[in-house]
Amino acid sequence: MKAAIVAVGDELLAPSREETNSVFLTEKLAEAGIPVAFRAVVGDDVEAIGDVLRSALGRAGLVFLTGGLGPTSDDVTRDAVARALSLDMELDEDIVRAIRARFEARGVPMPDVNVRQALVPEGGDVLPNRCGTAPGLFIPLDDDRAVVLLPGPPAELRPMFSEHVQPRLASKAEKLHYDVRKLWIVGLAESSVEQKIRSAYIGVDNPSTTILASAGQVEVRLTATGGSPEEAAAKNGALSAKLEGLLGANVFSAAEEQLEEVVGRLLLSQGKRITVAESLTGGLIASRITDVSGSSRYFDESVVTYSNEAKMERLGVPEELFGRVGAVSEEVAHAMATGARAGAGADVAVAVTGIAGPTGGSTEKPVGLVYVALATDDGVRVEKFQFPGGRSQVKRWTSQAALNLVRLHLLHERGG
Amino acid sequence: MKAAIVAVGDELLAPSREETNSVFLTEKLAEAGIPVAFRAVVGDDVEAIGDVLRSALGRAGLVFLTGGLGPTSDDVTRDAVARALSLDMELDEDIVRAIRARFEARGVPMPDVNVRQALVPEGGDVLPNRCGTAPGLFIPLDDDRAVVLLPGPPAELRPMFSEHVQPRLASKAEKLHYDVRKLWIVGLAESSVEQKIRSAYIGVDNPSTTILASAGQVEVRLTATGGSPEEAAAKNGALSAKLEGLLGANVFSAAEEQLEEVVGRLLLSQGKRITVAESLTGGLIASRITDVSGSSRYFDESVVTYSNEAKMERLGVPEELFGRVGAVSEEVAHAMATGARAGAGADVAVAVTGIAGPTGGSTEKPVGLVYVALATDDGVRVEKFQFPGGRSQVKRWTSQAALNLVRLHLLHERGG
Repeated sequence: MKAAIVAVGDELLAPSREETNSVFLTEKLAEAGIPVAFRAVVGDDVEAIGDVLRSALGRAGLVFLTGGLGPTSDDVTRDAVARALSLDMELDEDIVRAIRARFEARGVPMPDVNVRQALVPEGGDVLPNRCGTAPGLFIPLDDDRAVVLLPGPPAELRPMFSEHVQPRLASKAEKLHYDVRKLWIVGLAESSVEQKIRSAYIGVDNPSTTILASAGQVEVRLTATGGSPEEAAAKNGALSAKLEGLLGANVFSAAEEQLEEVVGRLLLSQGKRITVAESLTGGLIASRITDVSGSSRYFDESVVTYSNEAKMERLGVPEELFGRVGAVSEEVAHAMATGARAGAGADVAVAVTGIAGPTGGSTEKPVGLVYVALATDDGVRVEKFQFPGGRSQVKRWTSQAALNLVRLHLLHERGG
Repeated sequence: MKAAIVAVGDELLAPSREETNSVFLTEKLAEAGIPVAFRAVVGDDVEAIGDVLRSALGRAGLVFLTGGLGPTSDDVTRDAVARALSLDMELDEDIVRAIRARFEARGVPMPDVNVRQALVPEGGDVLPNRCGTAPGLFIPLDDDRAVVLLPGPPAELRPMFSEHVQPRLASKAEKLHYDVRKLWIVGLAESSVEQKIRSAYIGVDNPSTTILASAGQVEVRLTATGGSPEEAAAKNGALSAKLEGLLGANVFSAAEEQLEEVVGRLLLSQGKRITVAESLTGGLIASRITDVSGSSRYFDESVVTYSNEAKMERLGVPEELFGRVGAVSEEVAHAMATGARAGAGADVAVAVTGIAGPTGGSTEKPVGLVYVALATDDGVRVEKFQFPGGRSQVKRWTSQAALNLVRLHLLHERGG
């Protein structure tokens, strides 16, 4: 069993436009043991889609088409597939009702054009869309072959794939099993990660190892194959254990947990509450903490203190500090964390002050200079950083550093 | 004249593998006025390559194949193209000599397998490779159509394209210029946007119109062509003006400005300062406001009040409201905005309370229920929303609705 992926949309053929759905699907299919034999991007054109679909069916039993399922007249994937496979379309009243209910829940009547989304080629199974109006379709052609239509927005495609497509693939996969393991690392540059672990992975073909970096985070990805899921997992397990030993506490997750999830879990298990005082990150750290469902069990409140006045009034930072050492200083970070902890009555407070750029830097205090302070019942600890990149990257790096400082403190508490 | 790009190589179909040559070629072709109509990735397979090439020639006059020109047995692009186009192959002695010289310069005899790289389909022009052994090929089919073979390594492909392909395109490209315009819309669903504007764009081929939706935002993209940049821009300008008329204040940018940038500009021009009180968004709105460089000129501080206690202490929300109407209510949103505005001494305060999910919903107050309140010197206005999707989508939708409420207020102020 092999797969093909056809992404549909004029906009995907424009310059500087990334097509991320096939990256996602290729990975998920690899995990299910199904290799991709063909990938294509085609515009919103009935004939072109039909032609590419026939070509794809020539080299793959399982063809995914993504995008072009919306309600508007440039969304032609359903029509094109029905025509290419000579299938009639039927109006599915259940889908009409579901779409209408979705609109009514928002207090809006369903526009007439949305009825197009309820057309189903004969023999097709509807895949419910939990996050949008366009349902997906699973069209079995015979015992071995199927055409699968998925919506273009990744936020709709991903849950639909996991919930409704993945379970159908189990039986289609060949007997080669894949195991993917990701080590997520904070506090080390990509090149330092490489230097620490190269002795362990160079020359090892199975698992294969790749290293990917983003602002404030490095991913080491291991992909193993084996005759059984257990064999593949064991191969990954052996190398992963070696790498984790070499990387130590810099590895914050081997299970695709975000840093804010790891921090949330540690807070919860230790019965502690956290607060945040943010200057340059402007709310990003609190927003990440509250991205975790259930975060209200350890997070009550936080403040964004952008101006000096706000730092004084909300956090009790002494006015003289601004004249003497400036808002971006160890002393102000220290005072912000102390004031935030006292003001919120929290066990742990983390505070950040720095220069996000692109303006506001100087020779002594360049763009990217950041102080992160942590206040706990052990006292206050301040760390100084110099981060690279533009405004949004400096904000992201800072949020990583702040969450990591909290994580290392809580890990140490747990150990002690 | 349109182009198609076919990337060849089993390795390009593996997970976590990026295919960057088509990104490069798409950009360079756009600069030359040649749009890409089709893109594909196919394995090292003679039949598959031939089949995709025929399909590509059906929708593009200029087909690029990248990769598979090396000396080893899995490099089959040359063979596949010659077979698909029924062209004989001839050994080019000049190429043999050039490859041999390249090896001898490194003090290594040329391996026999490299002779394969000197096979040229009849009628093909050889494109010299300054950075590797695999020459490229430019195969004219007739006055209007050509097939171009380029080596896979980007370090070889890029100079070859610039030096030997780009000069040939000048004559192929029609003197066609492109103009792209994007209308960014808030407060309307994708299908409502379509219904409002379809009478204006259906049947218009130039510019072409596509509609794309993400959480809380819809993009209408116009792509016009013309004999000069001015002609293309004028065509977009005419349709864009019609669409903006139909969509009214729902269009927040025709210049790719984010909502937070538009709000920032309005605040700055009116000399007003803003503050935020966030419950379910947990800091996201403030973080977006401070994503804009220079936001300290209109933003001093904000609070995240996640718990009821924080809403009472930080914002003065009356305790009795939580028992009587609950934290997610018009009344609490109202009190939050009022308290935030007074506490920060700001001109404009926006407050949000709602249920981000996935837990915490009920029949009366389902996940996605959100109240947004705006406090200004005109008083307080509260709007109720029911947003779709998961936790991060509900947060995103809410931040869009809050920033939009501020924008509409400031627009009205400017008008009044």
